[in-house]
Amino acid sequence: MSKTSSEAGSLVVVACCCLVLFIVGAGAAPGTPSAFRDIFIGRCEDYKLGGINKLADLSELSSKNCSELWELFSVAWLGKEPCDVEPNDYKDFVESASITIPKDMSNFWDGWDIYDTVRSYSREGQRTWTLDYTLIGYLINGFYFCGDGKGGVNTESCPDDGECGFAVGAVDAFWAEASKHFSISAEGLSRVFFNSSRPGGPFQTEESFFSEFELCNLTPEKISLMDIYVLTDVRQSPQHDCDSVSINNLKSILDSKSIPYNCWDNPRDVFHQLCIDYDDHEDCTFLNDDGAVHKQSFFLITCIAFIVLQFTTKDTS
Amino acid sequence: MSKTSSEAGSLVVVACCCLVLFIVGAGAAPGTPSAFRDIFIGRCEDYKLGGINKLADLSELSSKNCSELWELFSVAWLGKEPCDVEPNDYKDFVESASITIPKDMSNFWDGWDIYDTVRSYSREGQRTWTLDYTLIGYLINGFYFCGDGKGGVNTESCPDDGECGFAVGAVDAFWAEASKHFSISAEGLSRVFFNSSRPGGPFQTEESFFSEFELCNLTPEKISLMDIYVLTDVRQSPQHDCDSVSINNLKSILDSKSIPYNCWDNPRDVFHQLCIDYDDHEDCTFLNDDGAVHKQSFFLITCIAFIVLQFTTKDTS
Repeated sequence: MSKTSSEAGSLVVVACCCLVLFIVGAGAAPGTPSAFRDIFIGRCEDYKLGGINKLADLSELSSKNCSELWELFSVAWLGKEPCDVEPNDYKDFVESASITIPKDMSNFWDGWDIYDTVRSYSREGQRTWTLDYTLIGYLINGFYFCGDGKGGVNTESCPDDGECGFAVGAVDAFWAEASKHFSISAEGLSRVFFNSSRPGGPFQTEESFFSEFELCNLTPEKISLMDIYVLTDVRQSPQHDCDSVSINNLKSILDSKSIPYNCWDNPRDVFHQLCIDYDDHEDCTFLNDDGAVHKQSFFLITCIAFIVLQFTTKDTS
Repeated sequence: MSKTSSEAGSLVVVACCCLVLFIVGAGAAPGTPSAFRDIFIGRCEDYKLGGINKLADLSELSSKNCSELWELFSVAWLGKEPCDVEPNDYKDFVESASITIPKDMSNFWDGWDIYDTVRSYSREGQRTWTLDYTLIGYLINGFYFCGDGKGGVNTESCPDDGECGFAVGAVDAFWAEASKHFSISAEGLSRVFFNSSRPGGPFQTEESFFSEFELCNLTPEKISLMDIYVLTDVRQSPQHDCDSVSINNLKSILDSKSIPYNCWDNPRDVFHQLCIDYDDHEDCTFLNDDGAVHKQSFFLITCIAFIVLQFTTKDTS
């Protein structure tokens, strides 16, 4: 019985090990798309035409060779073990795909809970540029990909975000190098968006792509102002604001780099965007909205009528 | 002198004819992108992964063969004279690339002056679906393309919008057929966006893709409600509204098809979107905005204070 029990225990341990190995080895995220090269080339040729990001410099784009860019990109990870890729492996690709970010357009963000907001706000690069509307980011945005360790690609599954360690592995290493380059290229007014309710605080220094690859790579001489946006969804209460410890940490780092900043709690422009889906919420009511005006006016008119009545009564008495 | 004058006149006529022929023949719009097939295949494979339009049905998309779709699409125009293409030529392609439009999501529009607004509003298909976020529209959106009349493509220049006549020619015929199909597929609540300041009125019946390919192809049994949005940019005065003749024409057509409708002049949700870039404008002020509240409150508090003072004076007198 005890032997049987021991064997069963061993089986459980072996099974668990296999399960762990399976999860780490195969990855918890989707594998490389089988048409990845076709999509990459398609996106590249598409971007070069100027319709994807209308503010991109066409003459600069005309010098990009999409097949060469694919070679430079794929050599960084294709065939390797999924986690055996470092940011520096993408250096040549990132430099070759680099385009000028227009002055005053760079838009940083940190934390997935703000991504949809900042993506809508950027208006496909027409209002601001997030990394994913540069050529570098556009080519890769939305994909998981990894090698199979045997010279090919893994189309079954790849490591999930952070699974290889921070900024390591085919996907995360790419975004680390791309983020660094985006930050080095930023010029003039810049913005950074955070969700005020982000668990752990809006600004974080540990394992944050913004903190570890963007903030530290900003060129103080090139950044005239950093607008910090601390955003809270309609119907939620802000968990942090511009005066919270988390944001004060960011301000200290900007101070130490002599980068001027403003901080805005739910500034009106972004709040209008957040209101699109909650236009009935009281916080989204327009001052000139009929209902709101009537409510305000009712009290004011009642008040004035009362005064007039007082005077009339006084006169007649 | 008169002969010379006559010759000169003939030369001018010939030159003018050549110019007209040059403009019509060569086209005033860009030519077919040299990498058109690569971009088409790339967009198609990309869309099939589900990241482009997150509400598209993945199982439905998995049956699409991108190379086959290209063949069906290109056979409609490739090699032909630029203007020698009719909507019906795209029938097979449109049917093969068709996907289900989720109920209550279809979003129509008419007039280029509203396109940016409706595109932002749709939020990449997450809020509503315009034709260009269906697979059919996504594959072709933003391109000019045409044949060379000799079995190949014209990469130099193609006819501009309407240059071959209404809904005729490689590009316009495609959008006509695609619009018709989009309309037939729409179900539940639907929306149509117009710019109130559109020259000629928001709703037009002549040479309008909405009027001639969408409105007339709506299935009354499938459309539960049509929301008509008449939109005016911030800082502009509305030239038309829900009660203007132009919109009343549309209402009559909907009545005749027994399709229920509502009409909204600058409804709050879209107006919030329009306010993002004009958040300082008085029409964009929030009721709860600090400045606005102070201004309103000032009059109310003054009024109440006056009443209180009246009573106090009365008591003490």
